[in-house]
Amino acid sequence: MIDEKMLSELYPFWAQLTPPHKAELSANTVLRTFKPGDIVHGGGQECTGVLGVISGRLRTFMLSDEGKEITLFRLVEGDNCMLSASCMLKNISFDVHVSAETPTQLAIISPVIYDKIAKTSPRVEQFMNDIISMRFSEVMWIVEQVLFMKMDKRLALFLLEQSALDQSDTIALTHEQIAGHLGTAREVVTRILKYLSGEGYITVSRKGIAIVDRKGLLKMTE
Amino acid sequence: MIDEKMLSELYPFWAQLTPPHKAELSANTVLRTFKPGDIVHGGGQECTGVLGVISGRLRTFMLSDEGKEITLFRLVEGDNCMLSASCMLKNISFDVHVSAETPTQLAIISPVIYDKIAKTSPRVEQFMNDIISMRFSEVMWIVEQVLFMKMDKRLALFLLEQSALDQSDTIALTHEQIAGHLGTAREVVTRILKYLSGEGYITVSRKGIAIVDRKGLLKMTE
Repeated sequence: MIDEKMLSELYPFWAQLTPPHKAELSANTVLRTFKPGDIVHGGGQECTGVLGVISGRLRTFMLSDEGKEITLFRLVEGDNCMLSASCMLKNISFDVHVSAETPTQLAIISPVIYDKIAKTSPRVEQFMNDIISMRFSEVMWIVEQVLFMKMDKRLALFLLEQSALDQSDTIALTHEQIAGHLGTAREVVTRILKYLSGEGYITVSRKGIAIVDRKGLLKMTE
Repeated sequence: MIDEKMLSELYPFWAQLTPPHKAELSANTVLRTFKPGDIVHGGGQECTGVLGVISGRLRTFMLSDEGKEITLFRLVEGDNCMLSASCMLKNISFDVHVSAETPTQLAIISPVIYDKIAKTSPRVEQFMNDIISMRFSEVMWIVEQVLFMKMDKRLALFLLEQSALDQSDTIALTHEQIAGHLGTAREVVTRILKYLSGEGYITVSRKGIAIVDRKGLLKMTE
């Protein structure tokens, strides 16, 4: 059951809402849990709703018709996703995919209700626009990486970010999965990982990729 | 001198502004003309302002430290650019470059004044957010192309779009310029153009690239 404390922590505008709006928003928010790998929002025409991460981690990514992917951004506890409610977003004509990376609990607000309240409350509208601008900036950073950064550098950066996200020196991802995050081919990832382990920055094993020389890896990303 | 008619045509919210706001906005809008190739907004920390295209055409692009570029979107008569006023945009942490592609006349609104009026007028704020969402969608379309579309297809698409923009069958751009639009190397453009002319879709000459088989070129983009 959704309680107001959860919503007040997810939505800075909560305190400014009128009691009827609070009641309506709570009544139209569902709590859902997802297992690692579960699809939260499948893209296409659907309009899942406004996602608020109570716990766990989401991955937002693009998927081509040929099944090629790239990670756009991750969402962790306290983050919100509006792109999964594109039906309520004027001029947002693209769609993204969202999946759970860890056991994840979400508060999902009905896009119809969020939109209705936003139309009467500038703060709710503003929050939505702030989130969209933030995602725009995150996507632009990905564009910069894809266009201007060599893949070996991007992979080194990814390993460091992933290790920070997982709070572990070992990245338990397959070469295939890493390729999906970076929007490249598995062969490319395998080749670069071989180079990085040759340089002594990482070791590659069945369990995954272990960072053994963080300084060296960090230097590569400069 | 800027007249209210220009602003009312550029800004759908104009009719809803209070007389003092109309006066303040007009007083803080400058009219400027640019020659083809002129830099309108140079990126970096500067905050040029809100650009409204009265006539001509602008190119918005990303530029890497190494000088590699890619075109994000074009702006034609009646279009607006807010990203050149990023100082007033919360959460927009990237910057773009804007240059004139043809003789261009712009109405440039002071970002401080636009921001001030937006804070008191939801419609002005909404317009800004609608424009940002539109650009976000345009950039996502570029991301899709870069990640998922083969360069020969992208180049064919670019030639058709450019021909439509210029309302001419001849694209008077160098291979270098085309590479800058597509975020690739000149050699790649030259190689694909050779292929396209070999297929009889285009002819390449000093004057530029002439589309001779539009149907064939269009079929390539499918």
